[in-house]
Amino acid sequence: MASMAGDAERLSDVGEDGLIAAVVGRYAPLPAHVLIGPGDDAAVLDVPGRVVISTDTLVEGHDFRRDWSAAAEVGVKTAAQNLADVAAMGARPLALLVSLAAPADLPVDWAGGLADGLDEECRRAGAAVVGGDVSEAAQLVITGTAVGVLPAGTPAVTRAGARPGDVVALAGRTGPSAAGLALLQAGRGGAAGGVPAEIGAALLAAHRAPRPPYPAGRDAAAAGATAMIDTSDGLLRDATRLAEASGVVLDLDADALAPDDDLRAAAAALGDPDLARLWALTGGEDHALLACFPPGVGLPASFRRIGRAMPKPADVRPGVLVDGRPWRGSTGWLHFGRRP
Amino acid sequence: MASMAGDAERLSDVGEDGLIAAVVGRYAPLPAHVLIGPGDDAAVLDVPGRVVISTDTLVEGHDFRRDWSAAAEVGVKTAAQNLADVAAMGARPLALLVSLAAPADLPVDWAGGLADGLDEECRRAGAAVVGGDVSEAAQLVITGTAVGVLPAGTPAVTRAGARPGDVVALAGRTGPSAAGLALLQAGRGGAAGGVPAEIGAALLAAHRAPRPPYPAGRDAAAAGATAMIDTSDGLLRDATRLAEASGVVLDLDADALAPDDDLRAAAAALGDPDLARLWALTGGEDHALLACFPPGVGLPASFRRIGRAMPKPADVRPGVLVDGRPWRGSTGWLHFGRRP
Repeated sequence: MASMAGDAERLSDVGEDGLIAAVVGRYAPLPAHVLIGPGDDAAVLDVPGRVVISTDTLVEGHDFRRDWSAAAEVGVKTAAQNLADVAAMGARPLALLVSLAAPADLPVDWAGGLADGLDEECRRAGAAVVGGDVSEAAQLVITGTAVGVLPAGTPAVTRAGARPGDVVALAGRTGPSAAGLALLQAGRGGAAGGVPAEIGAALLAAHRAPRPPYPAGRDAAAAGATAMIDTSDGLLRDATRLAEASGVVLDLDADALAPDDDLRAAAAALGDPDLARLWALTGGEDHALLACFPPGVGLPASFRRIGRAMPKPADVRPGVLVDGRPWRGSTGWLHFGRRP
Repeated sequence: MASMAGDAERLSDVGEDGLIAAVVGRYAPLPAHVLIGPGDDAAVLDVPGRVVISTDTLVEGHDFRRDWSAAAEVGVKTAAQNLADVAAMGARPLALLVSLAAPADLPVDWAGGLADGLDEECRRAGAAVVGGDVSEAAQLVITGTAVGVLPAGTPAVTRAGARPGDVVALAGRTGPSAAGLALLQAGRGGAAGGVPAEIGAALLAAHRAPRPPYPAGRDAAAAGATAMIDTSDGLLRDATRLAEASGVVLDLDADALAPDDDLRAAAAALGDPDLARLWALTGGEDHALLACFPPGVGLPASFRRIGRAMPKPADVRPGVLVDGRPWRGSTGWLHFGRRP
């Protein structure tokens, strides 16, 4: 859809119908479970089980910057953070709807790149973009809604089922997205200066276009996971949410959460080695999957043990410990700037 | 949730978790088909059939104004325009997800009023709010996603199935929302000056908080409707979409679409009697249901005949006629300001 004219085509040039045609034309053929895809009042899905559904919004300037991320990367991120929520219930992702609110001078090519990223990440998850909406707005606001299915007879894995004695385990890593963001914020986006090039590029990619371990969600459900959440706002914050919902204390093992070499290299390059541990414990947007399993259950290959669930003492609130001690300081990201 | 302090509480005062708790606390108990509602990574629905899903966004300044509509009215409108899309496929609405992107200084009471309206209209449709998301943004952007179910064995009613000879029928009215908007734009919002008070109030309400005829959608499907769409962008524009998707010409009967007394009273008050007919034919956001039925089928009680489908002559594009003649001028609303 690249314009041949000197000036790039903008949304106001092609209008609503032109934009929709341009975007929908980029999607790969629909999978068999999509009975009706984009273009009608609604999409129709053949869902052989219970329906799992979640929505999440990205706002320009808050969740992405167009000078830091390519349009396709924003598409991957939009799809990933929605599909990860469905995976975190133990479901198989099936479909994504996307609403784009955008200024009229947005280049059509940008919307096309967004569609490419949405489609690519949906395919990686086994899903497809099945519909959406476009509106004019002063600021770019992209809302995704993911739909998934629970295998017949399998209950959803909520945040609330963890029991004392459970093993706490993680699929995927925490920290790379925050490290990539820190490099961008420090102006190290280009060469990721001071960090080995390959490591820098991987951390930037982890921030711009996270790739959640979707199949780990249903593997966890099949293995009997008692509770699960994805790490969208930071491991400690999301672990706290799970602990509160379950009424337990989660004691995490600092050694198991020791930052990997890439995080330590990035922290060193930014002049503060302590950042590596902070990113691993409190960095958001990695969409790793944190789950609890009954003791004695074999963990799925995608999970590694990072702690255990303990009974909540009568005089203590549910929450998270690191090596048996309360964590001091922020546990992660909250919207609207409040850190209670 | 009204604040007792002199200044109203704002989102930045209560933070993300406080806002979610305040909003979710206002919803009525969840119906039985919602297995898991707000508060986890995703909602889980028991959907006994094929899943119908659609998304739509309202942007402040484009789709509503806070000085023209109460928060609850914006909630009703958000729910209505999403649930109507699901009804227009012949499905029964089940659930709504809502993403709120809002400035940090938005009063918490406004978000609470929005939730009240969302919940109220969902209940009217037989659905429930099952989840959502909150984000900080410069402008208020509200995205809804509606989920519905098709009865087992019933195919979805798309826009594409109309055949020559079909009866064209309408459930609900077109024009009241546009008339209400025109009164507001003319500064007649308060007393709706010049219009009898009851009529003015009803037209303003139709614009601020449309009430689509949801059950008419499944009644149409059960009666064998061949094609259906809701009138979100104007009767002629949406009829044209249906005609194009079906490859037919729809000939609408001007007498059957003659504006009712309330529209004529409002048009007279604004000094231009011709407006009444324009509102009825091209006014958007009423979310009436336009459907085609095979000839000889008894129309459901909620529908009245407004025209018929004809074969498309070889040298003519699919489209809409009024009393056998092409319509001159705009057929309704398009985003991004382009009128092709």
